[in-house]
Amino acid sequence: MPVDLEKLRFGTELIKRGFAKMQKGGVIMDVTNAEQAVIAEEAGAVAVMALHKVPADIRQSGGVARMADPLKIQEIMEAVTIPVMAKCRIGHVAEAKALESLGVDMIDESEVLTPADVFFHIDKRKFIVPFVCGARSLGEACRRIFEGAAMIRTKGEAGTGNVVEAVKHIRLINRAIQELKELDEPSIMEIAERYASAYTRLLSSIREEQGIKRLSKEDVVFEDYTLLEITDGIFKILMEIKEMQRLPVVNFAAGGVATPADAAFMMQLGMDGVFVGSGIFKSSNPPEYAKAIVEAVQHYDDPSVITEVSKGLGEAMKGLDVFKLEESERMQTRGL
Amino acid sequence: MPVDLEKLRFGTELIKRGFAKMQKGGVIMDVTNAEQAVIAEEAGAVAVMALHKVPADIRQSGGVARMADPLKIQEIMEAVTIPVMAKCRIGHVAEAKALESLGVDMIDESEVLTPADVFFHIDKRKFIVPFVCGARSLGEACRRIFEGAAMIRTKGEAGTGNVVEAVKHIRLINRAIQELKELDEPSIMEIAERYASAYTRLLSSIREEQGIKRLSKEDVVFEDYTLLEITDGIFKILMEIKEMQRLPVVNFAAGGVATPADAAFMMQLGMDGVFVGSGIFKSSNPPEYAKAIVEAVQHYDDPSVITEVSKGLGEAMKGLDVFKLEESERMQTRGL
Repeated sequence: MPVDLEKLRFGTELIKRGFAKMQKGGVIMDVTNAEQAVIAEEAGAVAVMALHKVPADIRQSGGVARMADPLKIQEIMEAVTIPVMAKCRIGHVAEAKALESLGVDMIDESEVLTPADVFFHIDKRKFIVPFVCGARSLGEACRRIFEGAAMIRTKGEAGTGNVVEAVKHIRLINRAIQELKELDEPSIMEIAERYASAYTRLLSSIREEQGIKRLSKEDVVFEDYTLLEITDGIFKILMEIKEMQRLPVVNFAAGGVATPADAAFMMQLGMDGVFVGSGIFKSSNPPEYAKAIVEAVQHYDDPSVITEVSKGLGEAMKGLDVFKLEESERMQTRGL
Repeated sequence: MPVDLEKLRFGTELIKRGFAKMQKGGVIMDVTNAEQAVIAEEAGAVAVMALHKVPADIRQSGGVARMADPLKIQEIMEAVTIPVMAKCRIGHVAEAKALESLGVDMIDESEVLTPADVFFHIDKRKFIVPFVCGARSLGEACRRIFEGAAMIRTKGEAGTGNVVEAVKHIRLINRAIQELKELDEPSIMEIAERYASAYTRLLSSIREEQGIKRLSKEDVVFEDYTLLEITDGIFKILMEIKEMQRLPVVNFAAGGVATPADAAFMMQLGMDGVFVGSGIFKSSNPPEYAKAIVEAVQHYDDPSVITEVSKGLGEAMKGLDVFKLEESERMQTRGL
């Protein structure tokens, strides 16, 4: 059988998704330096996410949040034996290429950093390294999977220490998946068309300005893909989701997880694992918080363990009331 | 007669409501440590509510308010002989499970903490421990009772030392109960349909995004319950309320009670008992305030006692003008 060299060159979907699956049931922790990475590994994190500042500090400091210094990421990679992930800005292909060449194990194309492109996310199929992306709805999840994401996580509202938005996104996605069960192919095709329409914004705005012509299904709307190809691709993903009754890639909770009970709650809601950002290194006792959260995820269905690991743990990160955030302060609305 | 094991496993409604009834005519006080719990018990509180910070301090400090440290709750449980209740966030099943495993006597699914779920409250029927929930209207009370709450309290506006909102909620609920007297079954069914519609928000928002189909009565909208089952359940609760001319569970006042006169006023308005949050430990003399409020509730219909216990009592908690609060600062609007 001839080997599809082109496919191997870009890393097969199977390999990328397989790597992501290995994180299942685990906790992935944000770290900003080698010392924190060691604390995370010792606590039992399955991977670390290298970034310049944790989301709570990004909020606090304002300005533009970008890819971390590659030297810092390298130090983290040298300090731990678990996989190291790193964040790039939404749509910032050059940051992603740089991270890939550095040899990180996974890239998070993340709304926590300042977005670099309002029209498009990165075409992740053109990379060997697997990607994780955030999603607030099934539509966002399908678009990211179409673009080649090997892992999905809820967006939640990062840096708030408040799980309410993550819970919202979990419920929206899980219920939307359930709803597919009852739908026939034409109805699912309609949904695919709606989900695909997010890719037409660039072209629509140009044609509107020029007053020339309407969009057709043959129009190329994202990289080399026509609207028809994207709709068809999303339709196939939806049919697979309908069949499996879950996303075809692992789906983690992220954005606001701050306590062992929060982490356990995410697992109880059916998530495959948990990202903890500011929750650990903004708590009063990071090593203990890290361990307690790992324990809570491993024993999420045993309330007595949650109670035990929460005892005398010290102050959780202070956090923010999501409902008091201005629209422009919400990270979750970045990227469609 | 065969025993319904499944029912026993989750604690019968009779047992749960029975426990709540034992608090009738009493005062339940917020405490943050064992020392305060002892003061409350010595003053004659029928139970204490263990929490991390009293509502006034939650307002002051901002951030995310979560379940108290289980170790603190345990210290409180060991320090007193009266029942110990504790608060969990609205919808946070993992916090509730942790509190249940710790052995608290009742859980308050409370808007005073930062909500964890914008769509749903906890399905309280799935717990052995009884729950108390806040309500601003008869609709909220019916939904919480449908979900298995064994006790209702007004929401009021916690941490303000201002009874105006509690009085408002008492009047709204009491008058709505009175109104039922004149209504026939079809009219009450219409009300039940309105009250039940709050459960459709998640599904409505998904179907709107997907543009597919409208809601039907057969749709499962909360846990395993269809809209029809919920409507039917709420209808039965309303018929019971119409008949009894009161809620089928005990109904306490809460949110802003700060003086003996406030507490007596609540009882005069027909409440079964009173929760006092910041009112005691934010006053100038907590032990005396605690005793005076218990006396006032016991002798609410004897103004001379209210006068006597109020004499030289020192400063009540300073409090806040509810009308000056921003919408996002109002705790009572949390949870529908």
